[in-house]
Amino acid sequence: MSPPYHGEDYQNDDKKEKESTEMIFKNVEIPKWHKQITMRAIMASVILSVVVIFIVMSCSLSTGIVPTFNVAAGLLGFATLKFYTVLLGKLGLLKQPFTRQENTIIQTCVIAAGGISFTGGLTTYLLSMSSLIASQDSGNLPINVKNIHIGWVTAFLFSVSFIGLFSIVPLRKMMIVNYKLPYPSGTATAFLINSFHTPKGGKLAMKQVSTLFKSFSFSFVFASFKWLYSYGSFCGFGYFPIFGMKAFAQKFFFDFSTTYVGIGMICPYMVSVSLLFGAIISWGIMWPWIGSKKGDWYSDKLEPSSLLGLQGYKIFLAIGMVMGDGLFQFLFMTYMTLRGLIADKIGAKHESSSLMEDEYESDGSNEKGSSHDDKRRLQYFLKDSIPNSWALIGYCVLAVVGVICVPVIFDYRLKWYHIICGYMIAPVMALSNAYGVGLTDVSLAGNYGKIAVLVFSSWIGLEEGGVIAGLAGCGVMMNIVFVAGELMNDFKAGYLTLTSPRSMFMSQLFGTGLGCIISPVVYTFISRAYTIGDKDGQFPAPNAVLFRGIALLGVQGFSSLPKNCLKLSVACLVFAFLLNLLTQVLIKYETKYKIHRFIPNPMCMAIPFYLGGYFAIDMCVGSLILFLWQMKNKKSASEFSMVVASGLMCGESLFGIPAAIFSLVKVTPPMCMAFFSASDYRKVSELFKKA
Amino acid sequence: MSPPYHGEDYQNDDKKEKESTEMIFKNVEIPKWHKQITMRAIMASVILSVVVIFIVMSCSLSTGIVPTFNVAAGLLGFATLKFYTVLLGKLGLLKQPFTRQENTIIQTCVIAAGGISFTGGLTTYLLSMSSLIASQDSGNLPINVKNIHIGWVTAFLFSVSFIGLFSIVPLRKMMIVNYKLPYPSGTATAFLINSFHTPKGGKLAMKQVSTLFKSFSFSFVFASFKWLYSYGSFCGFGYFPIFGMKAFAQKFFFDFSTTYVGIGMICPYMVSVSLLFGAIISWGIMWPWIGSKKGDWYSDKLEPSSLLGLQGYKIFLAIGMVMGDGLFQFLFMTYMTLRGLIADKIGAKHESSSLMEDEYESDGSNEKGSSHDDKRRLQYFLKDSIPNSWALIGYCVLAVVGVICVPVIFDYRLKWYHIICGYMIAPVMALSNAYGVGLTDVSLAGNYGKIAVLVFSSWIGLEEGGVIAGLAGCGVMMNIVFVAGELMNDFKAGYLTLTSPRSMFMSQLFGTGLGCIISPVVYTFISRAYTIGDKDGQFPAPNAVLFRGIALLGVQGFSSLPKNCLKLSVACLVFAFLLNLLTQVLIKYETKYKIHRFIPNPMCMAIPFYLGGYFAIDMCVGSLILFLWQMKNKKSASEFSMVVASGLMCGESLFGIPAAIFSLVKVTPPMCMAFFSASDYRKVSELFKKA
Repeated sequence: MSPPYHGEDYQNDDKKEKESTEMIFKNVEIPKWHKQITMRAIMASVILSVVVIFIVMSCSLSTGIVPTFNVAAGLLGFATLKFYTVLLGKLGLLKQPFTRQENTIIQTCVIAAGGISFTGGLTTYLLSMSSLIASQDSGNLPINVKNIHIGWVTAFLFSVSFIGLFSIVPLRKMMIVNYKLPYPSGTATAFLINSFHTPKGGKLAMKQVSTLFKSFSFSFVFASFKWLYSYGSFCGFGYFPIFGMKAFAQKFFFDFSTTYVGIGMICPYMVSVSLLFGAIISWGIMWPWIGSKKGDWYSDKLEPSSLLGLQGYKIFLAIGMVMGDGLFQFLFMTYMTLRGLIADKIGAKHESSSLMEDEYESDGSNEKGSSHDDKRRLQYFLKDSIPNSWALIGYCVLAVVGVICVPVIFDYRLKWYHIICGYMIAPVMALSNAYGVGLTDVSLAGNYGKIAVLVFSSWIGLEEGGVIAGLAGCGVMMNIVFVAGELMNDFKAGYLTLTSPRSMFMSQLFGTGLGCIISPVVYTFISRAYTIGDKDGQFPAPNAVLFRGIALLGVQGFSSLPKNCLKLSVACLVFAFLLNLLTQVLIKYETKYKIHRFIPNPMCMAIPFYLGGYFAIDMCVGSLILFLWQMKNKKSASEFSMVVASGLMCGESLFGIPAAIFSLVKVTPPMCMAFFSASDYRKVSELFKKA
Repeated sequence: MSPPYHGEDYQNDDKKEKESTEMIFKNVEIPKWHKQITMRAIMASVILSVVVIFIVMSCSLSTGIVPTFNVAAGLLGFATLKFYTVLLGKLGLLKQPFTRQENTIIQTCVIAAGGISFTGGLTTYLLSMSSLIASQDSGNLPINVKNIHIGWVTAFLFSVSFIGLFSIVPLRKMMIVNYKLPYPSGTATAFLINSFHTPKGGKLAMKQVSTLFKSFSFSFVFASFKWLYSYGSFCGFGYFPIFGMKAFAQKFFFDFSTTYVGIGMICPYMVSVSLLFGAIISWGIMWPWIGSKKGDWYSDKLEPSSLLGLQGYKIFLAIGMVMGDGLFQFLFMTYMTLRGLIADKIGAKHESSSLMEDEYESDGSNEKGSSHDDKRRLQYFLKDSIPNSWALIGYCVLAVVGVICVPVIFDYRLKWYHIICGYMIAPVMALSNAYGVGLTDVSLAGNYGKIAVLVFSSWIGLEEGGVIAGLAGCGVMMNIVFVAGELMNDFKAGYLTLTSPRSMFMSQLFGTGLGCIISPVVYTFISRAYTIGDKDGQFPAPNAVLFRGIALLGVQGFSSLPKNCLKLSVACLVFAFLLNLLTQVLIKYETKYKIHRFIPNPMCMAIPFYLGGYFAIDMCVGSLILFLWQMKNKKSASEFSMVVASGLMCGESLFGIPAAIFSLVKVTPPMCMAFFSASDYRKVSELFKKA
């Protein structure tokens, strides 16, 4: 089995960390799984879901950038129920203490609901079907327009949103127990929740809580401070050209995001390095090279955002790389699973051991099993397990529902066999996305969705309603892929807070249902108050425009892609596959120097292809901080680095909420901090001299 | 006697610090005073003096802003001689080890020489006599023009530059031994020098050196980083509107100057608070109020820099405040000295005790004398003392030289009785400036010089050559006042490094002589290579223009000052006097709550009147850091705060040298970081949309 990338580094830290946590909680009773889901938790979840969905939709419709709410949801859940229980406690009415499991349940539910508001597509692919968006582009036949209506949207959401949950059940064990992937957001949330609920007396825990609070406050205050200078586009610390203007143009800069610095402190070093390596290869070498072919490989009259130009290369090469990595992981894991089955190694040890125990032993990490925290966490994580067979049955039943309902909803522009194909491929993508999120916290669900749009719309064609069909097909796929990545973070949080996976699953089901109901209502509310899709308005819906653009590209077939784009994309796929193969070969046959530790991870390399290197630089800063800290004081680093990282991530995330509210009520930042090259500065200086 | 401002705070820190320093050096031999001045030290001084004078003159002629070079000179002196001695050591030719006293001697000499290049007036008042500057303004009779020539300039410098040195001899003991003023630059330099020469083995000292190095490196790197973003005017971290654009317009912002943050960590808390209080009173209340009288009190058609407008109020109110403080200090000290003499308390104890020992005892600080470091430092500081009588004789002799030579040089436009008056008033100003520099590190010599220009030029009048006479008179005064402030910092450094005051004095004499010779040569060199005084050229000589402006104002008399300016200035003088009186009364009669600790210092309050509050905010940040540090860990704060502060100051100062060289060779920073309000941003964004 493919070991987690540089798992050793991470696991060592993790083990030390664990030695201290569950011992402190040993006298705290853990409620049975059905008692973890309390009425008050449900109420809190509903309220917070409305808030989060409102924010997510507004963000997606205005700038298109949606922050992750995992940590914020954990924090808000705590704050809400703590307030409530302290109040009841003062009145003498409190019967059941507020537990960390309950806290995790709320967080999970809110994230599930909030996820639907994004992957449900009301701000992206479903919206892009409507005439609001269609009118902005050419080649739009009536068959390729379908306006949003609360009725069919709710039906669509209910028929496609739940299937993803069943796909993650078997993945859960693989990613968290076997692979021991870091899942930075989930880990940070769990640390936060554990800290909040730490029983009094644990001296180290109290110190950790105080450190968390400091790091959290710093991050929150710094985010507020950054906000003040962010009026206008390309303004503020988020666009700080720390390596100069030329590097900035190639997206190499430090954007002062404490969130990503925190993520860099939680991830293994190699993740940050791989990201940076990918950024250098793509933005430093490949894009300038492809850019020099402008006018030859692709037209020089295109908008910079056109998929027919450089932007197309960025997206398709990244997708090639990601698919190559995903394909390898899928094949390799299938092979190892089969080998394990044949060797008849599963049986009594099925529950408590990894599928490929021998691999782990050779990796020197079997001693991990002996740690108290690990044992206890594993025990609770596997206690109320959902058997894989149930998951498989659930998946199949819901697939049948989807196959029947979705074509009906879209007037048979999408056929039953399209959906079946989708449901057969989706788990592969879900697997690779869950793996990627686990390593880097960056979900590529949007990218998978975009490729799905392309595939389906080109398959069906313009005349047959390929635009609508492609977008609908994207929705079918994206829900599974997104949920696999995002909710896995919550399972990681559940694992670290000893929350029952069964109650987690129930909470996710409930949250998903909530999301399916609340999202269309909130969308209707916003669409009545504002004009959506107006280029100069408050809600230009950039994601919807992008999705429709891809669908229109798709109906014209892959041949419309720029020259050599497909070739290079396939080359990336092969490269990623071979790099993974090399790593596995080295792991097996080269145990002396462990060279495999220095081979970058193709999945991580692909992400900056599209986004640029700035967040890789943030993460490298985080890794560097951790490295120096460990050099200086290994004990203090292992005790506090995770806490500091969580605080850094939580503080900035939480500021996302007031920031979103400010933007909704049209409170703009007061100032713009801008950067100019010397020649641009002279122009600006002329301007103010005249005035 | 007036105690040092919140002397207790400072002294406590100082004492703890001292407990560790001289014990470490106890086995290191201290050379006799004449052995401290070595040939190699003289050679190094000459080389470094040329470098520093070149930089100072270029800065003053280009932007008009001259950084202080105390710490940089100490560092460069160390680096030069260390390189030389290590080289000799390797060759086996080293006879005499490199001592910290030698290091201090070089630093003192370079500072004395560099000082002349500024106060000598070649970039300010002497240059403003020349036709280069005169041609830029109206009302210039031929009698009011005198062009620079190396001959008369050198003669002038030699006749007026040395007298200042004699005025500081009696001040030295008063300010450093009796008042125990902090002298931040001098203290920082001394810490630097002590650290460099710390003998091996002192564990704390080694840790201090390493901390110093870190803080120094941080400061240097940060200064370089800031430089990168400082292309153009009002660009970079030095103009960061941390409290918003409106506060920035009133000069309330944090300019990220590590130098002033370091100064804030060395100064007593009350200094920072007084500065901030002064800034709020002036820029927050008074200037907006006076500004609202525009068109009534003063013409609304003036340039913002005109002394007939708001700028005039700023300068004259500040001068009123400073003079009030200086006057009180002078009268109070005279009274206390006389009382002491009458009580016949001086005698055998003259050398080792303060003049007003009883005051110190009542202040609870007599235990200080018992500290090992204090004793040793006092012993060396008073060992090779220069008697006050010699100083008096020297002052008188040089005054006679000045009275004879200066009128000759300026063709009797300035009469002998003008010079005599100047030499009688100068010591009062020197005293108050030495006191102010001791507290805050900010020298007001330039302001005293400006008032001297006004007084002399108005006394003599336009027709009689009042402009030239006023500027020359200013030179006579400013040399004394500046030297009193600046070289006192070096005496403080000498005190803390056990350098003999006699060798210090010799070094200052030598440095002054060097300055008198090198400055005119460097000026001639620059003036032949470039056009000086060309508004759009590299050397617009802003200070010279300002000085001539003041002189032209002076010849028209005080009556030309804007309405109520003189009244308000006198009010400030009285206010400062009364505030000091109140403090003394409280010290004497209110010993229970020590309310006097909470009364701000008028001298400190006055400085931001003219400059604005930004450096006060830097210093408050420094004070806050120190405060939090002391709260958290008193021991670590007392051991390392001074070291960290010194590092912060040294790093940024040293970067001043490459920055000056860059500016000379026309290497500009690559980027501009600018700040805009929302409305200004929209203009800028329009501009780039068009392009």
